[in-house]
Amino acid sequence: MRTPPGSMRPGGRTARVRAAVLRAAGDALVENGVHGLDLADVASRAQVGKTTVYRRWGSVPGLVADLLDDMAEQSLPRSDTGSLLGDLTANARLVQRTLADPRQGVLFKAVIAAATCDARTAEALNRFYATRIEEWAPCVEAAARRGEVPPDTDPREVIRAVSAPLYYRLLASGDPLDEDIAERAAAAAATAARAGIYASGTG
Amino acid sequence: MRTPPGSMRPGGRTARVRAAVLRAAGDALVENGVHGLDLADVASRAQVGKTTVYRRWGSVPGLVADLLDDMAEQSLPRSDTGSLLGDLTANARLVQRTLADPRQGVLFKAVIAAATCDARTAEALNRFYATRIEEWAPCVEAAARRGEVPPDTDPREVIRAVSAPLYYRLLASGDPLDEDIAERAAAAAATAARAGIYASGTG
Repeated sequence: MRTPPGSMRPGGRTARVRAAVLRAAGDALVENGVHGLDLADVASRAQVGKTTVYRRWGSVPGLVADLLDDMAEQSLPRSDTGSLLGDLTANARLVQRTLADPRQGVLFKAVIAAATCDARTAEALNRFYATRIEEWAPCVEAAARRGEVPPDTDPREVIRAVSAPLYYRLLASGDPLDEDIAERAAAAAATAARAGIYASGTG
Repeated sequence: MRTPPGSMRPGGRTARVRAAVLRAAGDALVENGVHGLDLADVASRAQVGKTTVYRRWGSVPGLVADLLDDMAEQSLPRSDTGSLLGDLTANARLVQRTLADPRQGVLFKAVIAAATCDARTAEALNRFYATRIEEWAPCVEAAARRGEVPPDTDPREVIRAVSAPLYYRLLASGDPLDEDIAERAAAAAATAARAGIYASGTG
């Protein structure tokens, strides 16, 4: 877990309070959705003073934005399996396991719903995905160095293509989210990348 | 526009009331989101008696579900350009234009957010996507008959693959949704389909 420099000592009281409050905020979001989120309730769940929570997070959007920043900080490092398909499959399985997990799936739905009606939450959500995409983009850069994909392949677009079918199922079509779907998403992105679909020459 | 058999005479009073109420519900959703949706406000916007709205739709989830069913009924017919890439590109452009439209994009975000916290809305949302996928699946079946893709290709999965990157941008990453992105989504799905990624042997 990375922490912004100077903002707190990892493992110190501030970090412990933040961890407890964000855990409680996640629990409350999973139980009641963003419209049931209440700072006083979160403080009580986290066994932290209400004043601390109001002073530090200020509002529900402030709290949800910090939860998303924490999720980005805790995002797992990329794989390095030696092949584009191997790396993208590892990424797809990670996303699939997260979204298919009962708690995490509901949490992601709740923060995505929250982002549709609050600009600050939307910015934090976009930051979360930018962080994840940045973490995994080097898999595509490595594939380009190995000659697996054209050198002008857009790495971020390939990483987005891996996650997209999984989010589409979670949020739109409601179709099941199993491991086969994750493997298919990775294989489709790798195949399209090899064919140059994500190279800058092709739009 | 198709209407369920026997439910109303198209152009009759019932159909006019429904059209006015659903238009007003859409306006209210775009302005205030689902948590600002109120049946009395919708009745007043539609210049329809409150009692009519309460009797016919009963609740906010009932109204949002009917709006989604109406969106499915009004879903545009599939293209038939003679090639898989042509058909998928037409589909991708249609989805991209819809999601990039200021009113429609906000409306889709609102109903997707509503579906994350209400089971009846989620069912209606899934029905909407099932209808769209069913409408466009014959493009893939025709491509299989022409020998463009393996005969055991899952048509629905190809159609989902076209929309997924566009919804991922709208709901998750926040990256721009332009025509190039639509063309790339169609090209990626067509390339992966031709390579057999959506054939049942590889799922």
